[in-house]
Amino acid sequence: MPTTTTERYYEDLQVGQKFRSPSIEMTAEAIKAFAAQFDPQPFHLDEVAARSSIFKGLAASGWHPAAVVMKLLVESDLKLAGGAIGGGLGELRWPRPVRPGDVLRLEGEIIEMRRSRTRPELGIVTVRLTALNQADEPVQISTPALMVPTRDPSAP
Amino acid sequence: MPTTTTERYYEDLQVGQKFRSPSIEMTAEAIKAFAAQFDPQPFHLDEVAARSSIFKGLAASGWHPAAVVMKLLVESDLKLAGGAIGGGLGELRWPRPVRPGDVLRLEGEIIEMRRSRTRPELGIVTVRLTALNQADEPVQISTPALMVPTRDPSAP
Repeated sequence: MPTTTTERYYEDLQVGQKFRSPSIEMTAEAIKAFAAQFDPQPFHLDEVAARSSIFKGLAASGWHPAAVVMKLLVESDLKLAGGAIGGGLGELRWPRPVRPGDVLRLEGEIIEMRRSRTRPELGIVTVRLTALNQADEPVQISTPALMVPTRDPSAP
Repeated sequence: MPTTTTERYYEDLQVGQKFRSPSIEMTAEAIKAFAAQFDPQPFHLDEVAARSSIFKGLAASGWHPAAVVMKLLVESDLKLAGGAIGGGLGELRWPRPVRPGDVLRLEGEIIEMRRSRTRPELGIVTVRLTALNQADEPVQISTPALMVPTRDPSAP
């Protein structure tokens, strides 16, 4: 995987730019531990109970891949100056469940950029993040708006 | 807090219906533990490093309140038949950071309801979830679309 050694500022980015992340395995143990803490429902906690649920088998809480995608973004080759900081998302959806043993990775693309109207030292960079499993099927799609420092706050 | 002892089906719900949750404290320890696992950036991990960041002090990863809100929804008095299961969100935003010691609770309202076009045994119920801190300031606003079983799949 290509890596960058320098952090990127707003001026170093452009719409259409793509980035990638390492991968991470979603073990049954991790799925159950996350669910026990944050989403304690039978279909996220117990294989047998999950069989008769809408998921028809153990599935991760959607907030588990959501959190894992954050880690993958931090570890990705996007490498924003100041870190990966978002104020919200226009979209977050889970097209299919994450199952025990799934290996997730991130493909990202910059889809919109603008300078902050109120804070000239910041740009708002919207990215589309697609988390894919080992079969290259999307398991989560999100479009966070990231705050990225500008090199030159006086630019138009 | 009022509680319901029976689970609710699609037919038991209506637009405008409100619900509440118990509260939960976001300790510095929990904020750092979540960040270490899912969002390992200095402003979520270390008080001193956080002071010179955009957050000007330790702040929880946004995905931490996101996960906690799921737990509060499960513990709320909404009590959906089949559990709280969502396929995605139209909106997710964090109007202000969550700080160590903040105590979060949920106020929810049903804002849209429709029967699934493809699965007559399900309704799609969109709720607006506002997570408030101990000063009643919103720290997270989200609008998940929940899948709720119908009592009568043959109804129009």
